[in-house]
Amino acid sequence: MNQIKLFSPATIANLCCGFDVMGLCLDNIGDEVEIHKSETPGVRIVSIAGADLPLEAEKNVAGVAALALLREWPTDFGFEISITKKIKAGSGIGSSAASAAAAVFGINELLGRPYEGLDLIRFAMQGEKLASGSAHADNVAPALLGAFTLIRSYDPLDVIRIDSPEDLYAVVIHPDIELRTADARSVLKQNVSLPNAIEQWGNLGGLVAGLYTKDYGLIGRSLQDKVIEPLRGILIPGFDKLKTVAQQAGALGSGISGSGPSVFALCKGAASAQQTADMMSAVYGQISLKHDVWISSINPKGIKILETN
Amino acid sequence: MNQIKLFSPATIANLCCGFDVMGLCLDNIGDEVEIHKSETPGVRIVSIAGADLPLEAEKNVAGVAALALLREWPTDFGFEISITKKIKAGSGIGSSAASAAAAVFGINELLGRPYEGLDLIRFAMQGEKLASGSAHADNVAPALLGAFTLIRSYDPLDVIRIDSPEDLYAVVIHPDIELRTADARSVLKQNVSLPNAIEQWGNLGGLVAGLYTKDYGLIGRSLQDKVIEPLRGILIPGFDKLKTVAQQAGALGSGISGSGPSVFALCKGAASAQQTADMMSAVYGQISLKHDVWISSINPKGIKILETN
Repeated sequence: MNQIKLFSPATIANLCCGFDVMGLCLDNIGDEVEIHKSETPGVRIVSIAGADLPLEAEKNVAGVAALALLREWPTDFGFEISITKKIKAGSGIGSSAASAAAAVFGINELLGRPYEGLDLIRFAMQGEKLASGSAHADNVAPALLGAFTLIRSYDPLDVIRIDSPEDLYAVVIHPDIELRTADARSVLKQNVSLPNAIEQWGNLGGLVAGLYTKDYGLIGRSLQDKVIEPLRGILIPGFDKLKTVAQQAGALGSGISGSGPSVFALCKGAASAQQTADMMSAVYGQISLKHDVWISSINPKGIKILETN
Repeated sequence: MNQIKLFSPATIANLCCGFDVMGLCLDNIGDEVEIHKSETPGVRIVSIAGADLPLEAEKNVAGVAALALLREWPTDFGFEISITKKIKAGSGIGSSAASAAAAVFGINELLGRPYEGLDLIRFAMQGEKLASGSAHADNVAPALLGAFTLIRSYDPLDVIRIDSPEDLYAVVIHPDIELRTADARSVLKQNVSLPNAIEQWGNLGGLVAGLYTKDYGLIGRSLQDKVIEPLRGILIPGFDKLKTVAQQAGALGSGISGSGPSVFALCKGAASAQQTADMMSAVYGQISLKHDVWISSINPKGIKILETN
């Protein structure tokens, strides 16, 4: 195999009570990444369509992730990466993670799969470190493993993949505003009250239990967050209103996607997701705020191979 | 049915990362409780063997729990309760919960089961409120439902029962010292650092996932607690040493049972549990500290009916 073309999905991290640990993989929103073997050793980003991002491998999340893999698996040939960005940078649905994950996934395939998922996550995290300053795994893990992922621990890295109930859909609405990760971080507090922390881990336990037992009601009841949402929600236009209409539309629950500004809702069934998407979209329509809305089933596999040669 | 005799099991609450939300039910340690219908309305505690506890129903945890049920389901007859305490009060394995849970379970049976588990938990919590000042459910829930229980929320009360992997065993060691719940509480801090809180809910997610997937390794890796254990462990003689030997003996993990002073370990298989119990017991043997040790499989059913008439 000398070249591979991939679809690398968008992801939702944090998931209310699952701040910094839970993520899920979307099905129909994602970047396209093509990787060719080349005679010259090293990694070259040969083109990026759809975004103004650096082509230098050391300054590009996909390049940095690829180089992290190749430091552990040196080759006497190289790789040329072409990226078509369809996930907007800074939208809160794992744009950098999709590119970083695709780079390491694709190179691993071209090398005959020397690495397993956990290693690929570890390499892709280096791309995240470039993008946001912290080597977090909560977007790259669901992009690489699919379904839901729980980052139990970073040291050592321990990631648990959890199947999604079949009828679960995600709605994502992205207001076309800029919310810098640094700003989303600066509103966080360094301490959590013990009662709020207990409530949060009770809810996370409920969310994990709901996923294993396919109990949609329990999933919905568990999608709560008294720790982060009250601080970050105010940075997102109409956040409370979006949550209210999602509930009115019958969504199981809703919250901030990643560090925002995208807002997600989880729904049981496509019809409920459509209704939720329509009502959330109308909130921004009423104030003429430019936005995108997506409806997606949960992607069980993560990155998809579109072509190989 | 006019009388019922019950075995009401001891329970382990908190379970490291599951502070205030997770509990499990033991199999072979428990109180015996006998309840007779009587012509005189109301609740009377007619005898308590094995402990010096108040007989007045309003001052007894079993009496208060029974009265909570009968306030919602008034009867023109009454109930006489005889209790044989085999779980020492203050040992940290749900002594008050066992009596309170048995009272409401038995009366519910004698009334033809008007209530379900969640209601029984609610009534039994009133006994806990008398015992410790807070109406917590993390011991009464596993006593009534068996296996593992997760208290996702108190308002509204939401309890999830989780089956135990079959080969899981609990070891409990109880040093014969007095550790007042008030003292165990006073060492707690009102705030948790955000990184520690995140680690705690990551581990709780891992514990729940490990139980559903019967992944003993994951259960073990998840049994961690950087929030409560560092504060309370110092109140328990030889706590660090107990944890060290439990690990050396091959236990999956260990921690404080309830608010102590009992310490528990979870093990895969009876042989590992025996080895762990022996080595933990030797820690106290070396310093001639009087103690009890129990080995128990996980009780899948909770309270058992021994006789009815």
